[in-house]
Amino acid sequence: MTPANPSPPCPEGIEETIIEHFWAVIPAGGSGTRLWPLSRSARPKFLLPLLGKDSLLQQTFERLTHLTVPSRILVVCGPAHAAAIARQLPDLPTENIIVEPSPNGTGPALALASALIQRRDPRAVMGSFAADHDVVSLEAFCGAVRTAVATAELGDLVTIGLTPTRAETGYGYIERTDDIRLETPTGTAYRAARFVEKPEQERAERYVASGKFLWNASMFFWRIDALASEIRRLQPEISTGVRKIVSAWESREQERITARVWATLPNVTIDQGIMEKASRVAVVPAEMGWSDVGDWHGLGELIEQDDLGNSVRGDLVQIDTVNSVVWSESRRMVATVGLDNVIVVDTDDALLVIDRSRSQDVRQIVDLLKEAMRAKLT
Amino acid sequence: MTPANPSPPCPEGIEETIIEHFWAVIPAGGSGTRLWPLSRSARPKFLLPLLGKDSLLQQTFERLTHLTVPSRILVVCGPAHAAAIARQLPDLPTENIIVEPSPNGTGPALALASALIQRRDPRAVMGSFAADHDVVSLEAFCGAVRTAVATAELGDLVTIGLTPTRAETGYGYIERTDDIRLETPTGTAYRAARFVEKPEQERAERYVASGKFLWNASMFFWRIDALASEIRRLQPEISTGVRKIVSAWESREQERITARVWATLPNVTIDQGIMEKASRVAVVPAEMGWSDVGDWHGLGELIEQDDLGNSVRGDLVQIDTVNSVVWSESRRMVATVGLDNVIVVDTDDALLVIDRSRSQDVRQIVDLLKEAMRAKLT
Repeated sequence: MTPANPSPPCPEGIEETIIEHFWAVIPAGGSGTRLWPLSRSARPKFLLPLLGKDSLLQQTFERLTHLTVPSRILVVCGPAHAAAIARQLPDLPTENIIVEPSPNGTGPALALASALIQRRDPRAVMGSFAADHDVVSLEAFCGAVRTAVATAELGDLVTIGLTPTRAETGYGYIERTDDIRLETPTGTAYRAARFVEKPEQERAERYVASGKFLWNASMFFWRIDALASEIRRLQPEISTGVRKIVSAWESREQERITARVWATLPNVTIDQGIMEKASRVAVVPAEMGWSDVGDWHGLGELIEQDDLGNSVRGDLVQIDTVNSVVWSESRRMVATVGLDNVIVVDTDDALLVIDRSRSQDVRQIVDLLKEAMRAKLT
Repeated sequence: MTPANPSPPCPEGIEETIIEHFWAVIPAGGSGTRLWPLSRSARPKFLLPLLGKDSLLQQTFERLTHLTVPSRILVVCGPAHAAAIARQLPDLPTENIIVEPSPNGTGPALALASALIQRRDPRAVMGSFAADHDVVSLEAFCGAVRTAVATAELGDLVTIGLTPTRAETGYGYIERTDDIRLETPTGTAYRAARFVEKPEQERAERYVASGKFLWNASMFFWRIDALASEIRRLQPEISTGVRKIVSAWESREQERITARVWATLPNVTIDQGIMEKASRVAVVPAEMGWSDVGDWHGLGELIEQDDLGNSVRGDLVQIDTVNSVVWSESRRMVATVGLDNVIVVDTDDALLVIDRSRSQDVRQIVDLLKEAMRAKLT
């Protein structure tokens, strides 16, 4: 892993002007259990260079530097990952790495970040971006963010919705209305109708066919005062708690107060705690080649495939092997014969071999290891 | 691996008297490519503890100590394995480890061993035993050998034929007549009709149904003078060459003469070069739970299986995995989900994952590695 490029090259078609008062927050939580054994508690998915030489976090940060400056990017993480994040993102000011004492969902994390931003820039518009997702088109990403930020300036809570490319049952959806909130050169914002949870197959197919449903990628945008007022209204405990924490921030009492208050806050995601209950939500439809890099099947689709449909990282010698994923982190060579739709992941201390259709069930392996008190392997 | 037990316990039902003038020879060649990546050129199958804590060679040696003394057991091997064999068999006198300069098939190897035995015991009866086969019933094995040795005393070339338990296409067969050569308390020898090569499925099924066909396990027995005369008649070059080598044996010229002559001898197995062409061959049918431990599918059947039909060596955490073989030599844990009839073999520098029905094709992987000049991995 190398540090993110300090002066990213400017791909053609990207408007390189930064957006005034735009702040980006990256909640970096979750280990990505479905990518076990590569992802571990101590080596979560966002720190891994799964697609290219940079980690997913580094790629996320790099994308944002086309829209804002590093001093306006915040990462919220757990105590175990602060040091690794600081090393991976040398351009990120250390005071922008916000350490939450324990995982509490994205709700408290983003509420704290927004309150800290408000102290520094009361006119801020804030966007939230998952640390471990993939985006193919930087141009489409930047365009959608510009539209979303412009819409947020109106006071709406805004989300980017990805045009679905398949009837995915693993994602949540957002239904949009035809009521246009804002048209910009880089996209259009519509009033959102509702958020819906992960659907079953049949419902997912109807959603995609309708043309009105978009994937929820947890990319959210708010004027900082608009978010504060929605938190006050919908999550008063979080609002009060975060105010206490912020009042002690950068004082001698910061750690003591943060730890004490944090433990009392409800564990809730920003999706469920705020966005799904908010009154004025807009959605910006976008196509950017987005993926949550959620499991081995999906990761196999994101890396290049050979003529036989195999996605290979490492030293493979194969006979009659097709549609498979072989990922070796060890120096071991891997030999396969007669495999179809099998996933092989080889790391120094654990080896995973699964039927590709069972990619979602890798998390069950992690659960079994936890039950067996084999935390070192999780 | 531990040294073979110097004083093997005496299982019930085994007659423990050693057979006077009986000499056992173990040609220890071949690496067992179908058991790659566990078996390697430098770590051939016979040196591996595949079934229990002792290696297959140690188990072979131990079985023979119920029939003869260590000073009448010879191992013929290549230069690369002499030291490992000496360590594994501390009771075997070093002069009984015969090193052939290069692999030449079992024909020259057994001809040399028999000529060296003849110098030490002209009345010897010699038996030949593969170094890397498995036998479940020591009692049945010892009984069959006693009958075979008694039959060889008559001057016949004798083989033990295993009663087939399935229509195996991977083994050669021996057809017996109803003509009895010798009846003994431990078995009956019949005149053999012919040896046949590995048959196709349909023919194999007819063989098994007939009751007259037995598996050829390359266990052969001869009076030493009877073998010498058949070699003279059927393989005169080998006969002449071996006489030259033996005349220089234990002289200063031994290595020079052996190397020079050995290179001129025809590469031929004892099966094809002598037994299939010999005039008076007898066969002793036996059932002893024999296996050539030929490939991963077969090895999986030889070790205990769990309720799901999985054969496991190592640390496995599985979900919905059935009829599979997981063999881990590394300390890595192995996790599997949704596998059926898959074989996973994990070693420190190579990992094999195959469909179980393709077990025979593992040798193709070894061929590919040789072609790619990756000899270290073979």
